[in-house]
Amino acid sequence: MFEHLFAEFASTALMIVFGVGVHCDETLKGSKYRGSGHMFAITTWSFGISVCLFIFGGVCMNPAMALCQSIVGLVPWSSLVPYVIAEMLGGIAGACMAWFIYADDFKASEFEVDPVAIRNIFSTNPTTESYNLPRNFAIEAFDTFIFLTGILCIAANVGENTMMLGIGVGLLVWAVGMGLGGVTGFAMNQARDLGPRIAYQILPIANKTDNDWKYGLLVPGIAPFVGAIAAALFTTLVLGVTF
Amino acid sequence: MFEHLFAEFASTALMIVFGVGVHCDETLKGSKYRGSGHMFAITTWSFGISVCLFIFGGVCMNPAMALCQSIVGLVPWSSLVPYVIAEMLGGIAGACMAWFIYADDFKASEFEVDPVAIRNIFSTNPTTESYNLPRNFAIEAFDTFIFLTGILCIAANVGENTMMLGIGVGLLVWAVGMGLGGVTGFAMNQARDLGPRIAYQILPIANKTDNDWKYGLLVPGIAPFVGAIAAALFTTLVLGVTF
Amino acid sequence: MFEHLFAEFASTALMIVFGVGVHCDETLKGSKYRGSGHMFAITTWSFGISVCLFIFGGVCMNPAMALCQSIVGLVPWSSLVPYVIAEMLGGIAGACMAWFIYADDFKASEFEVDPVAIRNIFSTNPTTESYNLPRNFAIEAFDTFIFLTGILCIAANVGENTMMLGIGVGLLVWAVGMGLGGVTGFAMNQARDLGPRIAYQILPIANKTDNDWKYGLLVPGIAPFVGAIAAALFTTLVLGVTF
Amino acid sequence: MFEHLFAEFASTALMIVFGVGVHCDETLKGSKYRGSGHMFAITTWSFGISVCLFIFGGVCMNPAMALCQSIVGLVPWSSLVPYVIAEMLGGIAGACMAWFIYADDFKASEFEVDPVAIRNIFSTNPTTESYNLPRNFAIEAFDTFIFLTGILCIAANVGENTMMLGIGVGLLVWAVGMGLGGVTGFAMNQARDLGPRIAYQILPIANKTDNDWKYGLLVPGIAPFVGAIAAALFTTLVLGVTF
Repeated sequence: MFEHLFAEFASTALMIVFGVGVHCDETLKGSKYRGSGHMFAITTWSFGISVCLFIFGGVCMNPAMALCQSIVGLVPWSSLVPYVIAEMLGGIAGACMAWFIYADDFKASEFEVDPVAIRNIFSTNPTTESYNLPRNFAIEAFDTFIFLTGILCIAANVGENTMMLGIGVGLLVWAVGMGLGGVTGFAMNQARDLGPRIAYQILPIANKTDNDWKYGLLVPGIAPFVGAIAAALFTTLVLGVTF
Repeated sequence: MFEHLFAEFASTALMIVFGVGVHCDETLKGSKYRGSGHMFAITTWSFGISVCLFIFGGVCMNPAMALCQSIVGLVPWSSLVPYVIAEMLGGIAGACMAWFIYADDFKASEFEVDPVAIRNIFSTNPTTESYNLPRNFAIEAFDTFIFLTGILCIAANVGENTMMLGIGVGLLVWAVGMGLGGVTGFAMNQARDLGPRIAYQILPIANKTDNDWKYGLLVPGIAPFVGAIAAALFTTLVLGVTF
Repeated sequence: MFEHLFAEFASTALMIVFGVGVHCDETLKGSKYRGSGHMFAITTWSFGISVCLFIFGGVCMNPAMALCQSIVGLVPWSSLVPYVIAEMLGGIAGACMAWFIYADDFKASEFEVDPVAIRNIFSTNPTTESYNLPRNFAIEAFDTFIFLTGILCIAANVGENTMMLGIGVGLLVWAVGMGLGGVTGFAMNQARDLGPRIAYQILPIANKTDNDWKYGLLVPGIAPFVGAIAAALFTTLVLGVTF
Repeated sequence: MFEHLFAEFASTALMIVFGVGVHCDETLKGSKYRGSGHMFAITTWSFGISVCLFIFGGVCMNPAMALCQSIVGLVPWSSLVPYVIAEMLGGIAGACMAWFIYADDFKASEFEVDPVAIRNIFSTNPTTESYNLPRNFAIEAFDTFIFLTGILCIAANVGENTMMLGIGVGLLVWAVGMGLGGVTGFAMNQARDLGPRIAYQILPIANKTDNDWKYGLLVPGIAPFVGAIAAALFTTLVLGVTF
């Protein structure tokens, strides 16, 4: 059990170091790769997740996925809450680590980079035009449904082949991120959104903007669980995948 | 039979959610990834198709492919018309889903984004300079011929390895889309072009432009069938692939 | 024998349709993907070659590779000259096909696009600053040496796995093209350079510029054979690969 | 033994030809792919390393990796110093080869391109804003820890499958480079940084700037060994990987 919890913590932290790290890279003054664009960032999220799977094997790294795997029987129900806690702590720790790496660039960006852009390094938030809580909720539920269904099917296809699991999930994040992420920024994972959102709240960053907890708790906080339940039911009952 | 029809419907819908979704992303005011460019978009089409294959296995997602597989004996002739109907409905449903996801950005883009660019989110259409029906017809037939020949050969190479099928087809779409798509936009599939073209016709989008049904029915409507017949004959008779 | 010659002709033609096609795409007025950049173009060359290998298996598509494989014993010496002829004809045919696809955009680009840029759609040529025949010769010999050594090692690693052959070679072209191609444009193949160079000479393109046959015959014409001999010797005698 | 040393020398040199080559490509006046951006460059480093592994199998190409593999028992301790020397010589030789390829473009860039940009073709150096030796040291140690842990786990996953080793490591470099490289430029390897830094010192390049040996020796010179020890201990003692 401890081994599993450590793997969930460490893999989630590593995923967030890559993902929040690339948004630091893209956004902050003083970073070498500033302005490298969305394909650069989404590629890092995608294959950063591949790397986590290469290292830690079939981890969840995601409370919604932990729920989904509990429903289909891959994770014991008694492990669900501990997994969620380990993942949330991993999300916070990873965001703090990314902040530490780029701390001098955060300093250089104070009052020079839009505070909303700095907040968005950490958490997912729609643009003003796209801000619509019911629709954003539906999108996050749908994106998570596709994402987790994809992972379950890939896992069923690859068996014990950890490398193909990582590669398949990386390609899945490419497609989901670029194709479905333009409104909400494809959180699909409480540890990915709320973990770094908490980190933004507590880290010593100057000139902070509103952290929008209402959005955070309602949309990336709850919608992924809806998608997770749908993915578990769809994969087992409709697609007939067995685990 | 119902299972196959459902798989054709759902996989085609998912492919179109990714593909029309990324064009929303790229084009609409208010999207987070606006202006991310053609490599971003074609990568999404490519590996979105990979994901559909990871989830649904060896589906056609394409009336031209269904015809091609009927000719080579992989799909029973009696299934052809039902497959085509399921795929067309999937194409319409996927485009409506993508519109729903980006509905607030469609609203924000009314009278701010070129109506031709908005139409081109849905369907494939040449630029003014490239508009030439006989040549466009020949290109779509040729592109489809290469595309379906490639898929048939990949399928023959990979056997039951669904992951390699998806990865191989994703790489194929990368090459075909970027190398051969600059004139017609590589429809190669009636469900991909006419499905979203119907959706554009019926969805509540303000300030619509001409939907160019003449082009749609002649070029992406008919030419892919010509390419499909050529691919079936070439693969079996010239390359000697057996299924 | 006829089957092999047909495969060499058709695969080389297809590779050139992708590769010359993407340069049309990138360069010509009226193309949908104009200005998409070098990563877009090199990705198309890379995975276009993967597709040719998926479809046609272990073809050479390259006179330098045919020589190299004759030296290591994979191609009979009696086949070498017929292979080279089939590949050169394929290179010419593929470039003509790409021109046909983009013919309306060639028309729209007459007197609007730099004639040197239009010539460079077809053949590889250094910039003015990099024009230095002895160095260009050494670079093309070196690039070809790395390229063919890489392919031979990949082929030895993958055995009968055609999909991994294609994927490995695609990744190799990514690295060689982007890392080593900035001076000469990584021809590494007479059929890739001289075939389209002949096509540029004979096609009805207005406002042509000098086709620089001196460069074409000396550098991409001869240097790849030097690299091919080096690759054959290095792979067998130094690396000890057996076929 | 000689074979291993040759493989370390040649693979490191080839990796540096790709990597320093792509920075020449990106930076110098007269290069065809100038200004192609960071994704272009990091993709070349990533899959250039894949190619080295395809050709030379499981080489270290990195003194930090050689130390790490000595600790876990994959490289005999008696080989460590010879490996390091072979890799450093490979790093110098590869950088000289890349300089030779782009020598005319170096000439054209004299007094036209920022000398700091030219120096950074060779070695990794932070921006002014990010220059902070203790933090840079910690980052390089952390990046190397993630990088080497990833490679060891990939190696354990793939067994004798050299192609999957290369592909997995390529994807790992994509994620590490883009997500974690924005401050220090992800050296993680003495042969990659100090080898080309020596080459910059001795090559006939006009208008050189300060080569910052203090940074080079302290950060990319020492920190990767700290990361290497951490990776060896973490992989064996925490993850329980056996070799």
